[in-house]
Formats: sequence, C-alpha cells, structure tokens
Amino acid sequence: MNYNEIAQQVKKDSFRMATLQESVRNNTLQAIANALTEKKEEIFEANEADLADAKANQLAAPIINRLKFDEHKLSDILSGIDSLISLPDPLFHTLLERELDEGLTLIKTTCPIGVIGVIFESRPDALIQISTLCIKSGNCSILKGGSEAARTNKALFTIIKDAGISCGLPEGFITLVENRAGIDELIKCHESIDLLIPRGSNEFVQYIMANSKIPVMGHADGICHVYVDQSAELSKAIPIILDAKTQYVAACNTLETLLVHADVAASLLPSLKDALASKNVLVKGCDQTQQLISCEPATEQDFKTEYLDYILSIKVVHTIQDAIEHINKYGSHHTDSIITEDDSAAAEFMNFVDSASVYQNCSTRFADGFRYGFGAEVGISTGKLHARGPVGLDGLVTYKYKLFGNGHIVADYAEGKKSFHFKEK
Amino acid sequence: MNYNEIAQQVKKDSFRMATLQESVRNNTLQAIANALTEKKEEIFEANEADLADAKANQLAAPIINRLKFDEHKLSDILSGIDSLISLPDPLFHTLLERELDEGLTLIKTTCPIGVIGVIFESRPDALIQISTLCIKSGNCSILKGGSEAARTNKALFTIIKDAGISCGLPEGFITLVENRAGIDELIKCHESIDLLIPRGSNEFVQYIMANSKIPVMGHADGICHVYVDQSAELSKAIPIILDAKTQYVAACNTLETLLVHADVAASLLPSLKDALASKNVLVKGCDQTQQLISCEPATEQDFKTEYLDYILSIKVVHTIQDAIEHINKYGSHHTDSIITEDDSAAAEFMNFVDSASVYQNCSTRFADGFRYGFGAEVGISTGKLHARGPVGLDGLVTYKYKLFGNGHIVADYAEGKKSFHFKEK
Repeated sequence: MNYNEIAQQVKKDSFRMATLQESVRNNTLQAIANALTEKKEEIFEANEADLADAKANQLAAPIINRLKFDEHKLSDILSGIDSLISLPDPLFHTLLERELDEGLTLIKTTCPIGVIGVIFESRPDALIQISTLCIKSGNCSILKGGSEAARTNKALFTIIKDAGISCGLPEGFITLVENRAGIDELIKCHESIDLLIPRGSNEFVQYIMANSKIPVMGHADGICHVYVDQSAELSKAIPIILDAKTQYVAACNTLETLLVHADVAASLLPSLKDALASKNVLVKGCDQTQQLISCEPATEQDFKTEYLDYILSIKVVHTIQDAIEHINKYGSHHTDSIITEDDSAAAEFMNFVDSASVYQNCSTRFADGFRYGFGAEVGISTGKLHARGPVGLDGLVTYKYKLFGNGHIVADYAEGKKSFHFKEK
Repeated sequence: MNYNEIAQQVKKDSFRMATLQESVRNNTLQAIANALTEKKEEIFEANEADLADAKANQLAAPIINRLKFDEHKLSDILSGIDSLISLPDPLFHTLLERELDEGLTLIKTTCPIGVIGVIFESRPDALIQISTLCIKSGNCSILKGGSEAARTNKALFTIIKDAGISCGLPEGFITLVENRAGIDELIKCHESIDLLIPRGSNEFVQYIMANSKIPVMGHADGICHVYVDQSAELSKAIPIILDAKTQYVAACNTLETLLVHADVAASLLPSLKDALASKNVLVKGCDQTQQLISCEPATEQDFKTEYLDYILSIKVVHTIQDAIEHINKYGSHHTDSIITEDDSAAAEFMNFVDSASVYQNCSTRFADGFRYGFGAEVGISTGKLHARGPVGLDGLVTYKYKLFGNGHIVADYAEGKKSFHFKEK
C-alpha cells in the first residue's frame, strides 16, 4: 500500500476511533504506560543504537541530547501519561442544546478532528506525547519522526500500537511513516488527512504550507521580543532577558530582539552587555544602542531573523507605541513580553501586541504546553484560527451540529406557518 | 492608495477596534439601525437603479429577487440588528485563569480575529449582516459585494461608515472594495488580512483558496444527502425530501443525492416520483432505482455534482453503512439527514457521517445561522478547524494568552529550584 491508500484506511478507522468511550481511551493510555515500563530495555537498546550512529555521524551535541531516551526521560513520559489520564475528556461535550421549535432540537457537541499528520524533530519523547494526546482526543495519528531517531521511534511505535490494538482501538489509530519520501505523499492526502502539524525549521514548515491543501497548524518561526519599558524595574529586566535569550537558545520561544525605552537605555544597556557577555551572547545594536555600548550594527534584516543562536539584536525606542509597532511588524505573533511596573502600560502592550502569548515581567520561555498546565502539547500555533499558542487537547477537537426533528421542513417557517422559539435547554 | 496600503492601515486600526468596550459596539449597532431607518429612501432609490439595470441586463429572476432591498428586507435587517445587540458580548471572556506558580498567572481571554475580508454574492442585506457581526465581534471588515448591487451596497456602506465614525470607531472599521480587480489585490494581503470568507460559486471559492495564503473559511460546494432508512416513516420522508430539494433550489444546503434503503425503495420511490414531478424535478437514478421508476441513469459523476437545480440523483443502498460510506466519499461535509424512527440507527448515522451538520427527520435546509438562533451568519464552514457549520459571532473571535509575572524565569523551573502548582482561579 502507498501512503494515499494507508491514509484512506486510517480515515475510515477514524470514524470508529471517534466513537470510543472515555474509559477505552484512558485504559489504552494506562496500557501504554505499563508496556513502556515493561519493555523499557528494548527502547533503551534501540536508543543506544541511534545514539551510536548519531555520534559516529558527528551530529551536534544538542541534537544528541534531545535524541537520548533514558530512565529519566521515561519517568517524565510516564508522569505525563498519568496527568493526561486525569485530564477531563475533551469529547462528547454538549456546547449548546437549543430547542429551535417544538420537537426540533439542535445539539452542538465536541468530536475529534479525525486524522492528524504530525512531522516532528529528533526527540523520540515527542512521538509518545503526540500519540497519547491524539488517543485521548479520539484522533488517529500519522507520525513522521526524525531519521536520526528511527530505531527508537520504531520501538516506541510498536509498543504503543500493540497496546492500543489489545485495548480495542482500530488498526489505523497510529501509523509510523518511516521514510522521508513519505512526507511528500502524505501532504497530498487532503481527502484523508484533516490537519497537519509540522514541527521543524522555518523552511520546512513553509514548504509544507506551500505544498499542501491540508490545513496546517503550528508556526514557521518564532521571533520573540522583550520590551523594557520606561517604568521597568531593571533588577527584573536583566535576569528575564538572560533567561529568555540563553536558557535554551534553539527554542521557538527564545528572545531574538530586545526593545529598550530610551529613558532607561543608558542605565540598562552597559550592565546588560556584561551579563550577556558572560553567556557569550553576541550583541547587534541600532545606532542609539551603539552609542551606549560597543556592539555590531543591527540591520533591518536582523529584526526579521530568528537567530536560534547566541545572538541578540537590540533597538532603542522612544515610546511604547513604537515598541508595539515594531513587534507587530517584525515579530512572528508567537510570544512577546513587557518589563514594566506600570500596569496600564502592560495592559496597552498586551492588548495591542498581536501575538498568541503576551507577558508582563516574565521570560518568553514560559510559552509551552507543559508550563501552561496542558500536560503536553502537539505544537505552538501562531495562527489565529482554531487554536493559538501552545496546543493541547482543546486544539485537537472540533464540534458538529446534530439536529433532531420529527418531519420538520423549512417551507413551514419560510411561509410563516411556524416560527422558531429558540429555547435554551 | 492601493488595497495593500489600505489593508495595512485597516490592520493598524484593528488593534484599536479590538479594545472597544461592549457599550461602544452596541451603541454603534443602534446608531446604524437608526441611520438605516432615517435614510431608507436613499437606499431604496439606489436599489431601484440597481434593479432597473439588472432587468435591462436580463438577469435571472432569482438574482433580481435577492437583489431587491425594500421595506420588508429593511424590517428583517432591523430586527436582526436588534437581536445582535441583545446577544452576549463575545469579547473579553476569560476562558481560563490559572496560577502557574506563586505570582505567575496565566489568563486565556477571547479577542477579535482582526481584519476579515468577505466577498459575497448579490444580496445587499448580506453587507449589513456581515458588517454588523464584525462590529459586534470587534473585527474590521473589508467587503466586496456583487457588482449588480453596486449602488445599493455603496449607499449601505456610506450609512454604516458614517454611523460608526460618529460613534468613535476607527476609520478602518469598514472598507468597501468597489472593483472586481480589487479581489486579486486583497487576497495577496496575507500580512494584513487575518481571514477570508468567500461566498459564491464553487469555482470562485476554489480560486480564492488556491491563490491566497490567507486562511479561508467557508465552503466550496454543498452536496447534501437525505438517507431514507429501512425504519423510516414514509409520510415524513416525502415532505422532507421535497422541502430539501425544492424549497430553495440554489442554496448550498439543498439536497442533491437521495439514498434509499432497499427495503423501502419499492414503497417510497413511485409516490416520491409523482411528488417530485409536481415540482418539475428531474430524477436520475442508479440501476435499482431505474427498475422501480422510470428515470434517467445516474453516473458516478452525478454523485459528485452540486446541481443547484431541479435535478435529484437517487441511489438504492443495502445497509446504513453503505449510506454512510457514500456520504463520506461523495459528500461535501456540509449537511446530511437520516429519515428513521430507529434512534440507534440515527445515532450511528450522526456519529459516523463526517459533516458539520447531521440531522434526523428534518430537512437539510435548516442549516443556516438564523435558523440555528445565531442571529445571522457570515457563512457556512465545511472545514473542521476553528468554526464548523453556520458561523456566527463565536466564529469571529479567537483568544490570546496573557501571562503576568514578577521577574519569573524558566531556568528556576528547569533547574528544579521552583515548581509549578497549577491552581485554577
């Protein structure tokens, strides 16, 4: 079977997946947790083979770090599954129940999206997080992981698939795509796949968006800002900037451009420069920044760049409105933070900055499903439709309208013989 | 200014529009209702000129009917605005308030989508419905109406714009695109326009979807089904089928293919044939249908066709599963109805048919924002993301996450110095 045929089969199975009761889905999650524990040696063995290859291929240290799947990662994963089991069921919620007229009742009820294709990076724990979120929300998942984690992913997939089948899930509840070419087949399956969630580089996500008719959820880049307002407490500003820039430099919620109000630039920038230097952060500054500290010049291109590296561009602004305008123009609508003790300035910033997450006095690195208390996330959406910001269970369901009648026809209402009374139930 | 510059300006105004209090938005709606009443003669005059042109150009009677804007339409519109004013505010709802840790509070709050581009057909009342829905939901709208209604639309636009400005709305809250070429400029404004809602022919909607990076909400076609189950009461079936097919033949929620269980085909089809003939409906049938009534043959192409005409294709099926499979394969995920007295068959149909609206014992023509009690609609979505089915105020808002801290950094949590406690507020 090619992936088009596989996706069609998964689509059919998705309707059965959508009707599974909460107990079946939760039992499956528990069975997966048990099987991962019982078969952990198989996983660690596969992972060691992947790690050996990665080292032989001289992959970068951060990739090797993310690739590692050990007791510590397993224990995180197991506690994640535990908390997922305890989260309320996202399915079969009645969002609206309205009697339109005598004997004609409209019910709006939550249901799964259907078939979700997820393409993710090297972390094998992502495979477990994504597939368990999909199971809890009644969706079938088609997964493509990073090739450097191929053996680990295959081991995890086999364990999850076996556990699911033994709990009564349909065959197509999970599918692993094992070759890179599969991606190009998958993104053409717009009749079978309801949603694509690509996680990866800007270019990769843009490629998926440009080449598929399937709706895409996620983000291409994360150009996040911190704005230090004239009413900022500088003792808070410096640790927040350091954390946002350096706590994990390759993340999408990492700070890329710092905006500083002119009134505090002279007092902030020299000590900030030293603090950044201690973390080996290269600073690029606008003209005014260069007058206050020695640094490379920042061009307009810098303000459009997601460095994902130890580089920070700095711009001095003269009003909060200038800061907001800069962020809305150059940002990626991901996560932006204002440092200020003035709550009305914070309110203005948070209302006018057009981003999924807007913060006061904290690091942009908090933008994450786990840190928001969602248990886990399938990704972070910078789109405004359906789901925005870190996407957990809520973003994996949609709804349908059910209308129950007794021979009701529209002509009676159009001709004035009957009229709607709209009673909420 | 070209439309790209206009859209950029509207985008800026959209942030101010997003912060307007409910009272300002409701006062504006009242001012619009008052102005429409005061200036109704201007509107009727413009409409008569449009109607005269339409007649001179020999446009079809249904188009001329939809184009008409008279006292009767005005009174409908005014009562629609009244009910819109009385609907609860969709903005500034707190969807979640969670203390992540001491002094670190996450708030998920509803907000407008931003700038919405709507391209709609000949009915000038659509301009008022769409723009007032956008005002209530704090969105700026950019509207392109049918050219045959150009004078009426211009008159309505001027009245609405003047009323809005006098109530303190930003200049860009409403924009009218007056030439067809404007559409091609607009769909390129993906940096300024957040959502496109095209209403029109299948080809037109497909064109917009294929040529814009802006998310599109709506539907390309409406291939709706009625399935007459073996447990159907035939006295209900025939009026529902007639209503679904003929009550308004050019609507997206009109019946195109009838599926009939083999056990009831012989008792239903002959009398149905007579009833359809009385409404001048041409019947195309599968082999089994042709054995029971005289009709043209239905090909596979028929099952993929949205006739928007007095034509009905009929297929005999042997199980409810066959009916569901046919609908999921050939339908457009819009609205499908089962006629049955067997509630478990209805439940199976309604759970497994992958459509926005699924009905038992009533006409597909009920799929409409007004009939669902939403006051009005901006369109009907067959997509599963964000909004599904008739789209009212709920579909015009999104949310953002606001996080309030006091110098909080992620390193403290990553290094185990602090941990999240996730307290709901």
